[in-house]
Amino acid sequence: MTSGNTSGADPGALMAAEIGEQPQILARLLAEQAGEIGRIAAEVAGRDHRFVLLAGRGTSDHAALYAKYLVDVHLGLPAGLVSPSTSTIYGVRPDLRGVLHVSVSQSGGSPDLIDSLVTARSCGATTVAVTNNVGSELARAAEFVIDVGAGSERAVAATKSYTAQLLALYLFVASLGGSTLSASDAAPLADAAQATLQDADKVAAVAPRYRSVSRMVTTGRGYSYATAREGALKLMETCYLGALAFSGADLLHGPMAMIDSETPVIAVATPGRGGQSMAPVLTMLRERHADLLLVGGQEGAPADDVIPVHTAGLREELHPILEILPLQRLALALALERGVNPDAPRGLRKVTETW
Amino acid sequence: MTSGNTSGADPGALMAAEIGEQPQILARLLAEQAGEIGRIAAEVAGRDHRFVLLAGRGTSDHAALYAKYLVDVHLGLPAGLVSPSTSTIYGVRPDLRGVLHVSVSQSGGSPDLIDSLVTARSCGATTVAVTNNVGSELARAAEFVIDVGAGSERAVAATKSYTAQLLALYLFVASLGGSTLSASDAAPLADAAQATLQDADKVAAVAPRYRSVSRMVTTGRGYSYATAREGALKLMETCYLGALAFSGADLLHGPMAMIDSETPVIAVATPGRGGQSMAPVLTMLRERHADLLLVGGQEGAPADDVIPVHTAGLREELHPILEILPLQRLALALALERGVNPDAPRGLRKVTETW
Repeated sequence: MTSGNTSGADPGALMAAEIGEQPQILARLLAEQAGEIGRIAAEVAGRDHRFVLLAGRGTSDHAALYAKYLVDVHLGLPAGLVSPSTSTIYGVRPDLRGVLHVSVSQSGGSPDLIDSLVTARSCGATTVAVTNNVGSELARAAEFVIDVGAGSERAVAATKSYTAQLLALYLFVASLGGSTLSASDAAPLADAAQATLQDADKVAAVAPRYRSVSRMVTTGRGYSYATAREGALKLMETCYLGALAFSGADLLHGPMAMIDSETPVIAVATPGRGGQSMAPVLTMLRERHADLLLVGGQEGAPADDVIPVHTAGLREELHPILEILPLQRLALALALERGVNPDAPRGLRKVTETW
Repeated sequence: MTSGNTSGADPGALMAAEIGEQPQILARLLAEQAGEIGRIAAEVAGRDHRFVLLAGRGTSDHAALYAKYLVDVHLGLPAGLVSPSTSTIYGVRPDLRGVLHVSVSQSGGSPDLIDSLVTARSCGATTVAVTNNVGSELARAAEFVIDVGAGSERAVAATKSYTAQLLALYLFVASLGGSTLSASDAAPLADAAQATLQDADKVAAVAPRYRSVSRMVTTGRGYSYATAREGALKLMETCYLGALAFSGADLLHGPMAMIDSETPVIAVATPGRGGQSMAPVLTMLRERHADLLLVGGQEGAPADDVIPVHTAGLREELHPILEILPLQRLALALALERGVNPDAPRGLRKVTETW
């Protein structure tokens, strides 16, 4: 299940096609799977969970991080991200009664995630697998399985499986109850994704400024912190850039020192409380003369460039599903400019096996 | 309480002095504060906690990460790192009955950490502040205060307060019960720290290889993941390097693609299960022709260079307190080589206020 050696043929064709599929995948998830996700959530909600654990690696870890904010803010339950090594390396068997354990994985095939879920289930947790492969070992090991339904993903850099994971997790948390979130709030999402993807010219115009860069910084706060992390990973995987991702607050606690006029910064700041809280960070970045690209910023914002994200009418919690789209496009365009085939980056395989 | 403008006078003198104080601070913590920490732990342990939350920013976030592994592995309780923005930006008031909430902060002065702790306490959590400033607002807001006793820290880049936080957290978790950890296991620590610091020649010898580097990678697993994160932050703060930190497993899930012969990697691999689990990562790094420095590796290890860490006789859980010492020295030496005064990095103040 590697992507095969597609270099040469039509570099980036797989990634471009999968990026383009996202509006349809989001629409299908809403139309065909929201009901099933709601049924699973209703059954899960019937148990009295006190705490939520989330596990993932790579791109799926960023989906887990997004879900952590959803749980923290909307379920009023403390949540944590699992370090799979505690079970795989240290053999821990914690008391997980009353714990909801959610594993996120495109392939459902990484041994450490499977081990972590199996351990969690045997230690009393309610286990849910959110995956693009319902026939996977992870899915078979879980009590509940949420199919993100993104279809076969062949490019090594995950794109459509990520946004599908985010939406599936949104629908799941929205249906767990005790929240102001609702599945119907996501109805305009597919059209908004289509509109955001249609601004391809804007992305093509900013790509050349990163052509000769070896390091850059991405940043965001709240729900958009996951976008900053995932955007950085796309740029590392496909463009071999050293892309450092920080929450807006963490950036101020030390890393700001390395920002200079030669360090480009991509800041995610769509309208909402997370985006608003980026204001003092953006001011400091301007003071440091950073090359600043705002994803989701308003025209006229204090930045060197702005990439619009069509968030109008959508609540802040859904913005990450859109924000990542131009960053996927940027990674694709920049990889091609730098002579890399983003469908098959060096040193990576589609299913990463870690222990 | 900023470091003042000490540039010019004797660059790096503050940081060098504070690095050198660490063996004595560790010895004093063990001799004079272990008893008080044990008493606090006994009182905390008397309550029936189901879950542990840890909060910190910057260096203190890395101490919190270290403590998360201790809690996961040794208390058999699920644990999570707090995203302070959930209370400061989103105003969340979760149900935290049965939750132990530990805030780590050198200064005790960052508004978001104070807000997070105040919220946690009012929502039913047992709150503990681990701080170097027992007169701080954070300390006043907490039900229990653990003084890390590192003395006044004047260099902006935290060094001695970090190792003191780690040891205080170790002693706290060791005394919470239900664990094989014991305070007496830490007895050889001060001597081991002194011996590790005496290998200064080795650090001075490797510093020049990073003189002209703009990005690098640090990595470690298990307890040593915190070391990789903190080492990267020191290099960012004092040398303005783009230092990317990954757990050994996360490095394989994507970022490995950007590793090439021009990307130096510092891998932390002291003896123990975390270090052993780095073996496949080190093999891949060699295959990618990365410039590889092993911190805590054995002589003859497959690396371009090795910096010894004197861990003999000390359990794996205590290694991070030693592993960071040569990395602090490296950051100091490299900053001076690059013409930066590490006592007062550009754009930073000693107390970072974030919301």
